[in-house]
Amino acid sequence: MAADPSGEAAAFFRAAPPLRDRDRVAGELAGFVARHSGKSLAFFFPLLRSPVPQLCSDLRSAKRDGILMRVVAASLTRPCVVAGSGGGGLPGVVCVTSGGTTVPLEQRCVRYIDNFSSGQRGAASTEYFLKAGYAVIFIYRRGSKQPYCRFLPEDSFLDLFELGEESDIQVPDSHAAVVKTAISNYRKAIDEGLLLKLPFTTIFEYLQLLQMVATAMNCLGRQGMFYLAAAVSDFYVPWESMAKHKIESASGPLNMQLSQVPKMLFILRKQWAPSAFCVSFKLETDPDILLQKAEAALRKYGMNVVVANELANYKDVVVMVTSNGRTTVGRPSKEDDVEEQLIDLLSVSLWRFYDYNKREFEKGPWELILCNSVSGEDSPELLETR
Amino acid sequence: MAADPSGEAAAFFRAAPPLRDRDRVAGELAGFVARHSGKSLAFFFPLLRSPVPQLCSDLRSAKRDGILMRVVAASLTRPCVVAGSGGGGLPGVVCVTSGGTTVPLEQRCVRYIDNFSSGQRGAASTEYFLKAGYAVIFIYRRGSKQPYCRFLPEDSFLDLFELGEESDIQVPDSHAAVVKTAISNYRKAIDEGLLLKLPFTTIFEYLQLLQMVATAMNCLGRQGMFYLAAAVSDFYVPWESMAKHKIESASGPLNMQLSQVPKMLFILRKQWAPSAFCVSFKLETDPDILLQKAEAALRKYGMNVVVANELANYKDVVVMVTSNGRTTVGRPSKEDDVEEQLIDLLSVSLWRFYDYNKREFEKGPWELILCNSVSGEDSPELLETR
Repeated sequence: MAADPSGEAAAFFRAAPPLRDRDRVAGELAGFVARHSGKSLAFFFPLLRSPVPQLCSDLRSAKRDGILMRVVAASLTRPCVVAGSGGGGLPGVVCVTSGGTTVPLEQRCVRYIDNFSSGQRGAASTEYFLKAGYAVIFIYRRGSKQPYCRFLPEDSFLDLFELGEESDIQVPDSHAAVVKTAISNYRKAIDEGLLLKLPFTTIFEYLQLLQMVATAMNCLGRQGMFYLAAAVSDFYVPWESMAKHKIESASGPLNMQLSQVPKMLFILRKQWAPSAFCVSFKLETDPDILLQKAEAALRKYGMNVVVANELANYKDVVVMVTSNGRTTVGRPSKEDDVEEQLIDLLSVSLWRFYDYNKREFEKGPWELILCNSVSGEDSPELLETR
Repeated sequence: MAADPSGEAAAFFRAAPPLRDRDRVAGELAGFVARHSGKSLAFFFPLLRSPVPQLCSDLRSAKRDGILMRVVAASLTRPCVVAGSGGGGLPGVVCVTSGGTTVPLEQRCVRYIDNFSSGQRGAASTEYFLKAGYAVIFIYRRGSKQPYCRFLPEDSFLDLFELGEESDIQVPDSHAAVVKTAISNYRKAIDEGLLLKLPFTTIFEYLQLLQMVATAMNCLGRQGMFYLAAAVSDFYVPWESMAKHKIESASGPLNMQLSQVPKMLFILRKQWAPSAFCVSFKLETDPDILLQKAEAALRKYGMNVVVANELANYKDVVVMVTSNGRTTVGRPSKEDDVEEQLIDLLSVSLWRFYDYNKREFEKGPWELILCNSVSGEDSPELLETR
C-alpha cells in the first residue's frame, strides 16, 4: 500500500474531470438516505425447520409496543428463521456497485481500457437485497445488467414481444410468467422508493459517485452496508497526462504507461463511512492465489467480508472470507442464483457483526427469533423466542 | 501500409483463438445469402416532385415480363424517385458492422482495451436499409444498440411497462406508439427473413466473422454491399504474447506494448469480396485531420465511399467522401436520423457505381424511373420513364 493513500486519493479527485449532474445526484441521495434512516427491517435466514405459513401470519399482525413487525412474505415459502427489528439498529440501506469501470486513454475518448464484468453479480444481488427488505443504492456501469432484467435474451429485447390482432402488446406464453414477475417486482421496488439507480462509465465517475454515496450514508452509521461488486480498474492514465485527441494509428506500435489507481477501499473504511459493514469482491483467474489475495484484502482494507470468486465459475461458487474463516457458497442448481444464499449468509455475518450471536442462534434448533428495538436505542433487544 | 498485408492478415488469423459456433454461423450465412441472391429491389430517392399515392398503387401491381415489382410502401409518403429492379443486377444484401471491438490484455480476459461506440450508427442504418428493401447481415458488438430498440430508455427497459388490473402487460400511453412500431417493424424484418444478426466482442471474433461474411457474400458479386460502421481496434496484443492470467496490480505502474492490427479493409477489397460496393467510416476527434484521413482511406483501401464523422457531432452531420468529391449530410432536426439521408445518398452512389447515371436521373425532373432486368443479365435495362 502507498505511504499516503489519503494524499493519493485527494490528488486523484483534484485531477479528475468533475461529475456531471453532481448537484442532482447529491439531492437524490440525501432524500433517499433520509427516507430510509432508522427503517424497520426483517431478516430471513435459511434455518427454520418447521412450517412457515402460520408463523408468517402471526408475524404479519404482530404488534409489540406499538411497532408493527415488517415481514417480507415472499421469502416465507422456504425454511428460514425470521428475525425482525423495529426502529433502528440494523442496517437498512445497502450500496451495491456493479459492472466494470473504464479508463479513458484519450481526453476526447475514443479508446479506453475496460474490465470484464457483465454486472450479473450486482444485478442479482440487488434483487435479493430488495427481497430481504433492504433499500438499495445501485451504482452501475451504463449498459450493464439490471435488476429484474437478467432473464432478458441478450440484445433481443423485442423477441419477447409480439403484437396481437388488436395491435395490443403480447408476450409469448413461454416468457409470460417471467416477464410479468419482472415488471411487478421492479415496479414495486421503484414505487416504494426502495431502489435508487446511479450510472457511471469511467473510473473517474465511479469513484466520485462512491465517495458521494459513502459520505451521504455515513449518517446511517451501522445501518449502512457497502457491497462492492464492481470491477474497478487497477491502472489508469491521469487526466492531465492523457492524449487530447485520438491516438494516431499510422505510426507503428503503441507504448503506454499506466499509473496505479489509489486504493479507495482504504479511504472508504477509514474516512468516508467508518461504521459501515463493508463487503468487497476479489476476482482472479488463477485459483492458486485467489484466497490468499482475498485474505490480504480483508486485513489491508479492514473489510468485514471479502467474497472471493474465479472468472471460470463465478456464477456457480464463491468463498466468503471473514476474520472467522472461509465459507464456500455454491448454488444448488443451474436454475438458482448463488447470490441468494450469499446474501442470506451475509445477513448472518451482519448479525454477528452487531454482536447478536450471543445465543448462537444460527446453530438452532430455534424456529423463530423476533427482535425489536423497543426503546429506540442502538442495540435491539431479543423479545421473543419460540 | 505494411509491405505484405496479406501475410500479416494470415498471421493474425493463424494466431487468433478460433471462433466458437463457426459451423453454425457458416450454415446460417450460407442460407441467408442463398435466399437473397438475385432478389428484387426497389430504391427510393428523395427527388420526386409530384404526389406519390397513385404512382405507388400503380407500381405495386406493375407486372412486366412476368416479374412483379417490389415496392416498399413505407417510403412512399415522402417525395422520392422510385426505381425498381427485377431479378439481379442491383445490390440486395448489405453487411452492416456496428459497435466497437475489444482487445483482450489477458488470455483469461479480465481487462481489455475498448473503442467508444454505442452502435447507434449501425443500428439506425440497419433500420433504413431494411426500409429501403435490402436484406441486412448485422454484425454487432454484444450489448450495443439494436435496430428498432434505439428509443429505449437506457438501462431501464422495465420502465416501459406496467401491469394492468388483470395482470396484463401495458405500455403507458406516452410510449405506446413507439413501442408498437418497434415491435411491428422488428417482427416484420425477422419473419420475412431480412435480418441476420451475428454478435462479436473481441477483435479476433470480429475479423473472423467479417471474413466469413465477406467470402460468403462474394458469390453475390455487385449485389453485395459492406457498410463498415464498427469501431475496429487499431492496436492489439497478439494472442501468443498475452499474459495468461490477470495482470497483477500490486507491482507498480503497468507498461504495455501493443501491435498494429493488420488493415483488413485492404484484404476485404482485394481478396474476400472484390466486386462488392464498400462503405467505410472514419471517426476522428480532431476536425483538422478528418477529411484528409478519409480521403487517404478511400485511395489506400479502394473504398467506394468513406463516411467521415467527428466524435463531437457524429449524430448531426457526416461527410460522404467519394472519388467524385465530398457531400455533407446533416439531419434536418434533432428528431431525424442523419442515417436516413445518408442511406438515400448511398443508393445514389451505388447507382452511379453501376453506371446507371447515363441519364443523369438525379438531376430530374423525372418523376419515376422503373428499371428491370428482363433477361436476367447482370445489367438491368431502363424500361420506362414518365
